[in-house]
Amino acid sequence: MAILPTLRGPADLRGLGEAQLAQLADEIREKIIETVSTTGGHLGSSLGVVELTIALHRLLESPRDRIVWDTGHQAYPHKLLTGRYERFDTLRSLGGVGGFPRRTESPHDVFDGGHAGTGLSIGQGLAEARDLRHGLERIAVVIGDAALMSGLSLEALNDIGQRGTRMLIVLNDNEMSISPTVGAFSKYLSQIKLSSVWGKSKSAYDRTIERIPFVGATALELSQRLRKSVVNFAQPGQLFEDLGITYIGVVPGHDLRALLQTFAGALQLKEPVIVHVRTQKGRGYRPAEADQVGFHGAALPPMTAAFEPHANGGSRPVAPGARSRTLSSTGTPAPIGHMPTESMADDAAPATRRAPDAPTKAPNYTAVFVAELIEIARHDRRVVGITAGMPTGTGLNKLQAEFPDRFFDVGIAEQHAMTMATGLAMGGERPVVALYSTFLQRAFDQVVHDVCQNDQPVVIAVDRAGLVGEDGTSHQGMFTLPAQRQVPNLVIASPKDEQELRALLRTAFSQDHPFALHYPRDPGFNLPAVEPKVIPVGQAELLQDGSEILLIGFGPIVDRARQAAARLAADGWSVGLINARWAKPLDRQLILEQARGKRLVVTLEESVVTGGFGSGVLELLEEARTVDPAFREVILKIIGIPADRFVEHGSVADLRGLIRIDVDGITAQVRETLATLHAVPGTSAAKPV
Amino acid sequence: MAILPTLRGPADLRGLGEAQLAQLADEIREKIIETVSTTGGHLGSSLGVVELTIALHRLLESPRDRIVWDTGHQAYPHKLLTGRYERFDTLRSLGGVGGFPRRTESPHDVFDGGHAGTGLSIGQGLAEARDLRHGLERIAVVIGDAALMSGLSLEALNDIGQRGTRMLIVLNDNEMSISPTVGAFSKYLSQIKLSSVWGKSKSAYDRTIERIPFVGATALELSQRLRKSVVNFAQPGQLFEDLGITYIGVVPGHDLRALLQTFAGALQLKEPVIVHVRTQKGRGYRPAEADQVGFHGAALPPMTAAFEPHANGGSRPVAPGARSRTLSSTGTPAPIGHMPTESMADDAAPATRRAPDAPTKAPNYTAVFVAELIEIARHDRRVVGITAGMPTGTGLNKLQAEFPDRFFDVGIAEQHAMTMATGLAMGGERPVVALYSTFLQRAFDQVVHDVCQNDQPVVIAVDRAGLVGEDGTSHQGMFTLPAQRQVPNLVIASPKDEQELRALLRTAFSQDHPFALHYPRDPGFNLPAVEPKVIPVGQAELLQDGSEILLIGFGPIVDRARQAAARLAADGWSVGLINARWAKPLDRQLILEQARGKRLVVTLEESVVTGGFGSGVLELLEEARTVDPAFREVILKIIGIPADRFVEHGSVADLRGLIRIDVDGITAQVRETLATLHAVPGTSAAKPV
Repeated sequence: MAILPTLRGPADLRGLGEAQLAQLADEIREKIIETVSTTGGHLGSSLGVVELTIALHRLLESPRDRIVWDTGHQAYPHKLLTGRYERFDTLRSLGGVGGFPRRTESPHDVFDGGHAGTGLSIGQGLAEARDLRHGLERIAVVIGDAALMSGLSLEALNDIGQRGTRMLIVLNDNEMSISPTVGAFSKYLSQIKLSSVWGKSKSAYDRTIERIPFVGATALELSQRLRKSVVNFAQPGQLFEDLGITYIGVVPGHDLRALLQTFAGALQLKEPVIVHVRTQKGRGYRPAEADQVGFHGAALPPMTAAFEPHANGGSRPVAPGARSRTLSSTGTPAPIGHMPTESMADDAAPATRRAPDAPTKAPNYTAVFVAELIEIARHDRRVVGITAGMPTGTGLNKLQAEFPDRFFDVGIAEQHAMTMATGLAMGGERPVVALYSTFLQRAFDQVVHDVCQNDQPVVIAVDRAGLVGEDGTSHQGMFTLPAQRQVPNLVIASPKDEQELRALLRTAFSQDHPFALHYPRDPGFNLPAVEPKVIPVGQAELLQDGSEILLIGFGPIVDRARQAAARLAADGWSVGLINARWAKPLDRQLILEQARGKRLVVTLEESVVTGGFGSGVLELLEEARTVDPAFREVILKIIGIPADRFVEHGSVADLRGLIRIDVDGITAQVRETLATLHAVPGTSAAKPV
Repeated sequence: MAILPTLRGPADLRGLGEAQLAQLADEIREKIIETVSTTGGHLGSSLGVVELTIALHRLLESPRDRIVWDTGHQAYPHKLLTGRYERFDTLRSLGGVGGFPRRTESPHDVFDGGHAGTGLSIGQGLAEARDLRHGLERIAVVIGDAALMSGLSLEALNDIGQRGTRMLIVLNDNEMSISPTVGAFSKYLSQIKLSSVWGKSKSAYDRTIERIPFVGATALELSQRLRKSVVNFAQPGQLFEDLGITYIGVVPGHDLRALLQTFAGALQLKEPVIVHVRTQKGRGYRPAEADQVGFHGAALPPMTAAFEPHANGGSRPVAPGARSRTLSSTGTPAPIGHMPTESMADDAAPATRRAPDAPTKAPNYTAVFVAELIEIARHDRRVVGITAGMPTGTGLNKLQAEFPDRFFDVGIAEQHAMTMATGLAMGGERPVVALYSTFLQRAFDQVVHDVCQNDQPVVIAVDRAGLVGEDGTSHQGMFTLPAQRQVPNLVIASPKDEQELRALLRTAFSQDHPFALHYPRDPGFNLPAVEPKVIPVGQAELLQDGSEILLIGFGPIVDRARQAAARLAADGWSVGLINARWAKPLDRQLILEQARGKRLVVTLEESVVTGGFGSGVLELLEEARTVDPAFREVILKIIGIPADRFVEHGSVADLRGLIRIDVDGITAQVRETLATLHAVPGTSAAKPV
C-alpha cells in the first residue's frame, strides 16, 4: 500500500520504520519522475535529495524547526512531504505548485528563492534571530556543492565560522553532472571524497558510525566523538575546520540510516556543523534498467544525461536520453512543458532533434547567438566566452568545443565573471559574458563599477531577458533593463528577431564600449539565415509608416506589436511601427520624427515598465515637448510588465496573456487608451507644424 | 638630497641602492602625510604599503607589467612613483590627482576602482589575456586582508586556484585597524601570523630567506625551495594551498630587502602565488615619537587612531589623534578638506568636537540616523543593525556600544549582509542594514530576490546617497535610486532634513515591508531635535503654494529647491514647492493636484536623472495626461545628476556647481527651461479646467 498519499505532514514520518521509509523514498522518486516527465522541472537535483529530505523531516519538527533549501530547485521531495502531493501534477503551471519553495504555498517553505547561494545567509539570519530570542528551534540549510562556491555562500561561511552560529549545513555534493562543478573549492571537495574509504566500502562506514553512542553523551562529547570517528574515517575537511565550522563527512547520501544517525548527532552540536553528503544527481532515474531492484537499486549506474550543474537553479529539465525512454515506454510522446518556448527546448534540443518524429523547431535565440559568436570567434582570435556555471544553458559549451582555451566557466560567480571580463578586455581580449538576465542582477555593481566605469569593450549577453515562464518569480528577466539604462558608457540593444540578433552581435564586436545584448528564452521565428551586417549603434528601423498611432517595440515583442498594429489598422487606424533596437542610445531622430503629430505613441518591452525603455522614450518626448509644442498633444503609453509585482510561474504564453503583453493584450491596451483619449480613427492625422 | 622629486618613473628605482631606497620610503611617507593632512584621504593604507610599492616597482617593469591595486586607496605611494609627485597636493580636488588609480592619469594605473575585492578578478583577467596572447608580462595584485574576505575575491581565488593562473598576489595584511577585520578567514590569517616566528625575531626570517639561492635555479626548484623554506618557516597557509595557490609568508612588510627577495622569487614561479605580507597600517605616522629613528623606526608602536578597516575604500581620513599632532606642530589648524561636508566630518567627528577651537558643526545625517536608531532600539528589542565592514562610517558602532548582541559586522560582504538581514527578519527581528549607496550596488540582487521577493521588513539605510565628493567616480551615490525604483514591495524614502530623517526611520519600523531610506553624506541643517512622528507612507508635504511653477524635491535637495524658489519668486514667478519624501510610492494625489494648471513642473534629486525619481513623476504625469487634457500643457523638467557620465572627484560643493545642482545651477536650469517655453511670469497662471 502506498505511504506517500497517506501522509498528513512531515510529523507522520516519525511513525514509520526503516522499511517503510525506504518504500516512501521509492514512491517519492516515482511521483517526481512521473510528474516532471509531463511538466518539466528539476529532476536530477530533487531525485538526489530524497533520502536526505526524509531524514531531515524525520528528525526536525518543521515548521517550528526551519529547513532552508538553497537555490530551491531540490525541494520537490520536501514539497511532497509537506502537503503538496495532491496538487503536485500542477507543478510549474499557472496557479499550480511552484518549482521553488514558496511561502504562500506552505508554512514549511521558509524562503522564496531560486538564485543559488542564498541559503547559508538566510539560515544564519534565522539562527541569529533565534539566539537573540533565546529560541530553541533548529535550523538546517541544504546547499549544493556548486552553490557553495558562490561568493555569497563563501561570505556566509566566513561569517558563520567567525560567529560560531549554531546551525546544520548539509552539503549536498553530487558528482553526476556532465558539466562538472568548477573551481578550486570543488577540487578540494573531490580530494576529500577520493580519500574517503566510503567510496570503496559502505559497510565500513556503517561500522564506524554505529560505534558512536548518541544517547546520554553530552554535546561536547558528541562533538568530539563525531569529529574523531567520522572525520578521521573520511579525512578531515580541514578547510572548513580552519574556518571554524565542524566538518563531518563524507556520508553516503542514499543510506537513510547513515543520514539519520549523522544528522541526529550533528543537530546536537551547539556550533556550526557541515555534514558533507555524497549524493547521486538523478538517483533512481533509470526505471527500465533498474527494474530488478526498483528505483532504489544500489547498483544503479550513473546517468549520462546532459545535466547542467544546478547553477542558480536555472531551468534544468529532464535529461534528453531519459526522456526518450519515457517516450518509448508510454508509446506516445510526452508533452514537453506547455508551449514551444518551454525551457527544455534549448537544453535538450539535440536529443529532441534526434528523435525521428519530433517536430522541427525554430532555433532559439541562444542557439543563434552561439552560432554567430563562434563564427565571429573564427575570424577574431580575441573573442573569448565566459559563463557563470551555465555552459549549456547559455550555449557557450559550443564555443568551448571549438575553442577550449577561449572559454571560461567560473562557476556560480556572476560577480567574478563580469570583473574578470573587464580584466580580459584590458588585456586586449574581446570577452563576451553570457548570463541570464535574472542572474545578472548579481553582477550589477560589476557592470557599473568595473566594466562601465572603465569603459571596457565587454559584451554582456543578457540571455532569458523577459519572461522565462515556469521557473517563476525568481527567474523572470524583468529587472535588468531599468538598472542598466542609467549606466554611463553602456550600450543596450535587443533584436526584433533571431537574424537581427546576429547583426547586433556583429555590431557589439565592431565597437569599443560595454555592450549589453538582451534576448529572450523564446524560440526564434524560423527565419532563413542571412549574412549579418553591422548596424550603426543607435539606429532604429521604421517598419511601417502611419499617421495616427506609433508603436515602438524593443526586442522580439516587435513581432507582437506588428500583429497588434494589423488589428488596429483593421479598426481603421493608421499605425506606424518602429523596431527600436536600442534602449540606449535611443534613435532620437527617428523616434521624434515619427512621434510628431501622432495621437498616441505606444512603447512595448518585455521588462518592468518602471524606468525602462518606455520611460526612456518618455524622457525624450518630454524634452521635445519643452522645445516644440507640437509634441504636447502626443500621448505616450508604456506597455510592458506591470509595475510593483513579481510575476508568478506558468507557461510564458499564459503569463503574457495574464499580464496583457500578448497580441490580444497589447491590442486591448492600445484600444483602451485610445478610448480614454476619445480618439476616433481617421480624425487625428498629423497636424502640419 | 631628496630622491623622490628626481625620479622620472619607476624604472629609476633600479638605479638606487638599499640606503637610497630606505630614504625614498621616508620621503614618500613624508609627502603623503603632508598632503593628506591638507586634502584628506587614505593615510593609513597608503603608509602601510610604502616599502611594498617600492619593491614591486623595482622588480616589475610597469606599465608593461601590470600592478593592480585592489580597492585603490593604497595607491598613493604608487602615484608618487609614477609621475604624480608634482601635482600630488591637488589630491582629491576637482581636476587634481584622484584618490584612486585612474587610467586617465597615468599608463601605470591599470584600473579605475574604489570598491573592494575587484583586484583578483581584474588581475586574473589580465593574466588570462596574456596567456592567450602568449605574452610575457607579469601581473601583480595587491589586496588587503579585509578585501580578500569579500565574496568577489573568494570567487576569484576559487577560479585562480582551479585554473592555476600565473600571477603574484600580495596579501597586504595589517593589524592596526581599531575595527578589526572580521570573519573566519581573518581569524585564520591571524593564526598563521601568531604561529609565525617572524613576530618574535626578524633576523630569523632574514637568515631563512637568505638561504634561498635564486640565481640559476629552475622555476620548479625555486617553487619547491621557496615553499619548503619559507612556508615551513612561517607555518603553511594550507587553506590557500588547498585551493591550488602557492602560499609564501609571513613576510615583514617594512623590510625592503625581505620584500625584494621574496617577490623576486615568487615572480619566477609559473603558478598563482600569494605572498602574505604583514604591514602596519599608518606605519611611520608618529613623527614626534619616532624622531630618533626617523619615519622608518622599527620600534614604532601601533597607532591607536580611529581607523576603519579599509572596507571598500570608503573614505577613511586622517586619524583624529594624529591630526591634532599636525595641528600642534604647525601652530595653525590644518584645513580639513575643502568644505564642511568633507567626509572626515563624521568619521573624525568626536576628535574634532573635542578640539577646543573647532567650530561647532551640525550633526550629519549619519549621526542623526544612528542616534534615532538607538532610541528606537531601546524600545524595540527586535531592532538589530548590520554593517558590511563599515561600523564607524555608518555610525553603527554606536549601536554596537549599547547593544553589542544586536550588532553584526559581516565584513566586506554586502550581499551576505542583505540576505542575512532577510533571514533575521524572517526570524522575527527588525534588521536595519546600513550601507553606502555605492556599495549597495553589490547587493542589488539580494534586495530584489531576497528582501523584496520575500517582502521582509528589512530597513535598508542608504547612507552617502548623492554626491560624496573627493572619493570620486567609484563612490558617488548616484545609481541606487533607478535600480531600486522598479523593485516590487520596496518603499523608498528620503528626508528633506535631518529631523525628518528621524521621523522616516520611525516610519520604517512602523510598517512591515522592505524600506529603503536614502540620506546623504552632508551635514544636517543644525535643526533642533524634535520628537519624531511617524509619517504615513506615500504622504508628501506641500511646503509652499504657487500657481505657475511647481518644484518637487526628493531628499535634502529640497532645501536648495526652496532657495531656488525664492529667487524665481523674485523674478516674478508664483512658485509652489513639494517635499516629496517618497520616490515609491509617490504621493500621486498631492503631486497631480499641485501640477494641474502649472506651466512647469521641476523635479529635483541628487541621483542620475535616467529612470529615477523624476522619471517616476513623469510616468505619473503622462498617465494623468491620458485621462485629463489639462495636464498636457504642463511641462516637466527633471533636474539631477546628468545622464551618461560618471562624476569625478572634487569637493561636493564644487561638483554640485559643476553639474548645476547647487542653488545657482538649479535656478539657472529652471530659468533656461522657462525661456525655452517662452514663458513670462504672471501670464501663465492656472487655467480653469
